[in-house]
Amino acid sequence: MDKFKVLFLPDNKIIEAEKGKTILSAAISAGIHINSSCGGDGVCGRCKIILKKGQLSSQPTGRITSEEKRGGYYLACLSVAQSDAEVEIPKESRLDSGTITEEDAYMLRLKGIYSEVVDIERGESILPEELFIHSPLATKLYLDLPKPNLEDKLSDLERIYRQIRLIQDIPVLQTGLSNIRRLGALLHSSGWKITVTLGKRNGTTEIVLIEPGDTSEKNFGFAFDIGTTTISGQLIDLNTKKILGTKAAFNKQASFGADVITRIIFAREENGLEKLHHAVIDEMNIMIQELARENNVDLNDVTCCLCAGNTTMIHLLLRVDPTYIRREPYVPTANFVPVIRAAEAGIKINPRGLLDCVPGISSYVGGDLTAGALACGMDKTEKLSLLIDIGTNGEIVLGNKDWLISCAASAGPCFEGSGVTSGMRASKGAIQRVKINPKDFKPEYSTISDKPAVGICGSGYIDLIAELLRRGIIDRGGKISQRLSSSRIRDGEYGREFVVAFKEESGASGDIVINEVDIENLKRAKGAIYAGTSMLVRHMQLSFEDLEEIFIGGGFGTYLDMENAIFIGLLPDLPKEKFTFVGNSSLIGARQMLLSHQAMKDAEDIARKITYLEMSVEPQYMDEYMASLFFPHTDLSKFPSVRLG
Amino acid sequence: MDKFKVLFLPDNKIIEAEKGKTILSAAISAGIHINSSCGGDGVCGRCKIILKKGQLSSQPTGRITSEEKRGGYYLACLSVAQSDAEVEIPKESRLDSGTITEEDAYMLRLKGIYSEVVDIERGESILPEELFIHSPLATKLYLDLPKPNLEDKLSDLERIYRQIRLIQDIPVLQTGLSNIRRLGALLHSSGWKITVTLGKRNGTTEIVLIEPGDTSEKNFGFAFDIGTTTISGQLIDLNTKKILGTKAAFNKQASFGADVITRIIFAREENGLEKLHHAVIDEMNIMIQELARENNVDLNDVTCCLCAGNTTMIHLLLRVDPTYIRREPYVPTANFVPVIRAAEAGIKINPRGLLDCVPGISSYVGGDLTAGALACGMDKTEKLSLLIDIGTNGEIVLGNKDWLISCAASAGPCFEGSGVTSGMRASKGAIQRVKINPKDFKPEYSTISDKPAVGICGSGYIDLIAELLRRGIIDRGGKISQRLSSSRIRDGEYGREFVVAFKEESGASGDIVINEVDIENLKRAKGAIYAGTSMLVRHMQLSFEDLEEIFIGGGFGTYLDMENAIFIGLLPDLPKEKFTFVGNSSLIGARQMLLSHQAMKDAEDIARKITYLEMSVEPQYMDEYMASLFFPHTDLSKFPSVRLG
Repeated sequence: MDKFKVLFLPDNKIIEAEKGKTILSAAISAGIHINSSCGGDGVCGRCKIILKKGQLSSQPTGRITSEEKRGGYYLACLSVAQSDAEVEIPKESRLDSGTITEEDAYMLRLKGIYSEVVDIERGESILPEELFIHSPLATKLYLDLPKPNLEDKLSDLERIYRQIRLIQDIPVLQTGLSNIRRLGALLHSSGWKITVTLGKRNGTTEIVLIEPGDTSEKNFGFAFDIGTTTISGQLIDLNTKKILGTKAAFNKQASFGADVITRIIFAREENGLEKLHHAVIDEMNIMIQELARENNVDLNDVTCCLCAGNTTMIHLLLRVDPTYIRREPYVPTANFVPVIRAAEAGIKINPRGLLDCVPGISSYVGGDLTAGALACGMDKTEKLSLLIDIGTNGEIVLGNKDWLISCAASAGPCFEGSGVTSGMRASKGAIQRVKINPKDFKPEYSTISDKPAVGICGSGYIDLIAELLRRGIIDRGGKISQRLSSSRIRDGEYGREFVVAFKEESGASGDIVINEVDIENLKRAKGAIYAGTSMLVRHMQLSFEDLEEIFIGGGFGTYLDMENAIFIGLLPDLPKEKFTFVGNSSLIGARQMLLSHQAMKDAEDIARKITYLEMSVEPQYMDEYMASLFFPHTDLSKFPSVRLG
Repeated sequence: MDKFKVLFLPDNKIIEAEKGKTILSAAISAGIHINSSCGGDGVCGRCKIILKKGQLSSQPTGRITSEEKRGGYYLACLSVAQSDAEVEIPKESRLDSGTITEEDAYMLRLKGIYSEVVDIERGESILPEELFIHSPLATKLYLDLPKPNLEDKLSDLERIYRQIRLIQDIPVLQTGLSNIRRLGALLHSSGWKITVTLGKRNGTTEIVLIEPGDTSEKNFGFAFDIGTTTISGQLIDLNTKKILGTKAAFNKQASFGADVITRIIFAREENGLEKLHHAVIDEMNIMIQELARENNVDLNDVTCCLCAGNTTMIHLLLRVDPTYIRREPYVPTANFVPVIRAAEAGIKINPRGLLDCVPGISSYVGGDLTAGALACGMDKTEKLSLLIDIGTNGEIVLGNKDWLISCAASAGPCFEGSGVTSGMRASKGAIQRVKINPKDFKPEYSTISDKPAVGICGSGYIDLIAELLRRGIIDRGGKISQRLSSSRIRDGEYGREFVVAFKEESGASGDIVINEVDIENLKRAKGAIYAGTSMLVRHMQLSFEDLEEIFIGGGFGTYLDMENAIFIGLLPDLPKEKFTFVGNSSLIGARQMLLSHQAMKDAEDIARKITYLEMSVEPQYMDEYMASLFFPHTDLSKFPSVRLG
């Protein structure tokens, strides 16, 4: 017998696992997504499964505790079926395919330089997308063509060109053969009343579609932010600029690795690139279908799509080999991707609809940062501004309307809830705010959607570290006190740990804890972000005090405690009013570009203007980073507002 | 039994004919080509077959003589199998699929205004294509890219753009996703030494191909003239401008009708458009394959293709519905067709290779005339010039560098050997020159390739009518003499006829004759051309004497007796030195455009500049036409050089 049947719970899906194939690999083949950060190398310990029936053989691993072992836990990536089996994927190992939240609805609106524009030009409240001239990536134009007669015998196609040029000044117009093939019959049957969809395509204007009658009322587009961890999409009415709906879902590529590096490595495996490409495209198509259905939008009326994402995400979206991104000298295949048909990338909107990607800057600073800088208006302000986008790969940009400089700070996935014992993404049941009672050390916490706690997300960890520090439970090096006595402070399998929530009070399969290894990881993550920011500012011979505006973006859901972020040394110690939490600035920028060709032009200018500073070659970076490996910092004089007992 | 088996000779192909399906229709389905001018309406009598075995039922027809009826002749379009059968397609009904001749090798070179250019600029002999700056539709450029390093981290695609722009000033560069997908691996494996193929595409420059190493030596293109009757193709080395080979073949669309009107009607039948499209594409692909093989050219190195043709031919080439060309107000779908991938039209060169079509002027004056006017340099000369392109649809253009005006004269297919009793196309065995002995009326004739006579082609008919007129065998009205006595002058089924070659002395299945119906058809054809020319000149308030250069183009093979063409009243009576026979001027123009973007720009200017005069609405046209229905003309004072006994 060459195959065993494995039943996956709670999916209730039976798959046939070839002998010798790991459970993780078999699950991936069957489209069942299990959490995994390291790409199946047995390192991250995220792909835990519980054996319910049958036999598995497994390589030894330190990522399963003795208690878990007794409870039937295995790592899917190290386990092979020895018989037909039944396994459960516990909550914490599942990639919840549901949407997280309508995050955009709660998102804090951008302030800062926009209010200036508003003050000057209109003196009233204004939405970010109104800052740009309304000229979407694809525009519908209704044409009531004069019918040909013996005096006016211009061909059908030139007749359309002539009419368009009476309305708009378009020097280079082009169209494809498939439109021409349908043209004669279409004009005659519609009585020369048609709607053309004009797409902006690489310096020219393309007649993307020709439809009978007046369909100009129905023109929709999608803006996407494709993050390493989360994909966010918005359906936009291109005429009214209205956001009809927003969805966010996990990037299922996480099954193949938590960060871009493990995914780039996975892309070289057999069908690896194909699998990574489909993981993102399939999720986007589900989002597109759902948002279209919920808003009674016909997919044929969706004429364009605009995607922001880091450089690796855009390569994988387009099924372009990302191999060279991680090989010195770290050069991507393309930062400026031409406008193509969305169908070429597998995106299911109108088959002739367009796809444009926000131009990127370098291998590790992508179009998501370009979009963020655009959304924050950094290219238009005289104020010295800083945008820190805290993602798996932290991206930082500094400057004003005259210059912009960026760097990448490899934070790792901790702040997105990966690579830490009880970490989870910012979705239902994630602990996002924490306070610790100074007397009994009992944490008071709140979770997203007030569901029973399942784990801790990024903003929860920031609060937790700050509170542990405040209460003296950890020292500035991150070590958990040996002298304090509490049922919550104990020795675990990976050193000393603090119990945030006992199993009984939570919805998790075990205690929700933070241990010294987790704290070390979080310290490194915050250290990398702080050191990168600090180096960038110093490289320009500036000091933090010179900064006038600081924008913080990232996948923290809707909440980020700025004071705690400063307290742990993630952000520089500056007055709170200088900080603005912008949430998903990348998605806002993408939407602006979808709605305005001027915004796209500005974004291209930004991408060309931003210089990239490679941290690894900066001699002082390592010193700065090492000095940042304390809470808040080795040099307390840098954090005068932080007072520790 | 629903089907009968029909064996076709000499093809030796057995097909299954559904009950009730005509033999013509069954043959077409099976890919066996039988001559047909009327599209299967039983009118033209070109689709004769000989029943060898079995039974056919047939509708009565006047197109089969009693002699033929006895010999087992049927019209394929009116006959239905009543049993399994065996039929022969006689020579005169076959569409010879072989090439006619390397006509270009024998073609008279253009003189006239080119010699002026030569005198002024170089004072030496010059080929037409050297008149334009060498800048082919697709150019290969070898790039030795600087390898990226930590100081120069431009992405792969922008690196290529930068290098191209160091060499050429190209504002808008674009490329497709398939090139981007291959780019990373290709650059690394080739050591950053690549060849890009740059294509001129609708106001932009496209990177059509990216190949490893230096392949710039191998860049080839095809120029095509797609005539209603004949398709001519040339393989060109785009670097050296050398013509590597020329082929001409019948347009197999003739199976579906001899002229554009019957084909447009056929296009509306089930799969009609598809069949017409494939008839032309299949023949082009055979030509492309043969020329490539003969010249050791890899089809992947054929990067572009440039096609001239009348408006209907271009529609059918691109599988665009031609219906509206023949419906008032006679408006085509497109005169200016965008540059597309050749593969989209089914042309099998490099899958990403480009196809450009010469812009046309109106429904009945196409890109072939634009190309002809370009080749003759009519847009550059101050001399008042006239180009008459004698095809199934005669096209005439008059003017100079300041203005150009055109008209179409519906000559019918006589001069291409169709619609006349013994007519045939200018291929092997066609009588092309005729003299008639004044004593015994015995014709002396020569045939193409000196093969036994099979029929009479256009130039043969011109000579024949002139000689019949000179010898008094026909009068000026075209009636055959009742008083002359000769075995060659007799009454036939369709009135009085003259025998050019008796069956015994020829390679035909019967006597080769010309009868009064044929003469009437030829008279109408020459009358239409003459009247059109005359009207065009008069419309501009000019007289024939004002003309300084007259170019005659058309499918007459390599020979046209200009004196006889004047003698019968086809051409105006002007000094012979004013006339130049330019042969296939359309193919020459297409080649110039393939090799020079400047020539393409000039052609676009020509197509925009040429005004179109609709003859049917000119009040005097009918009078002029009626007056032309004599040999040479009603008004002999217009033909002072013609002296009749």
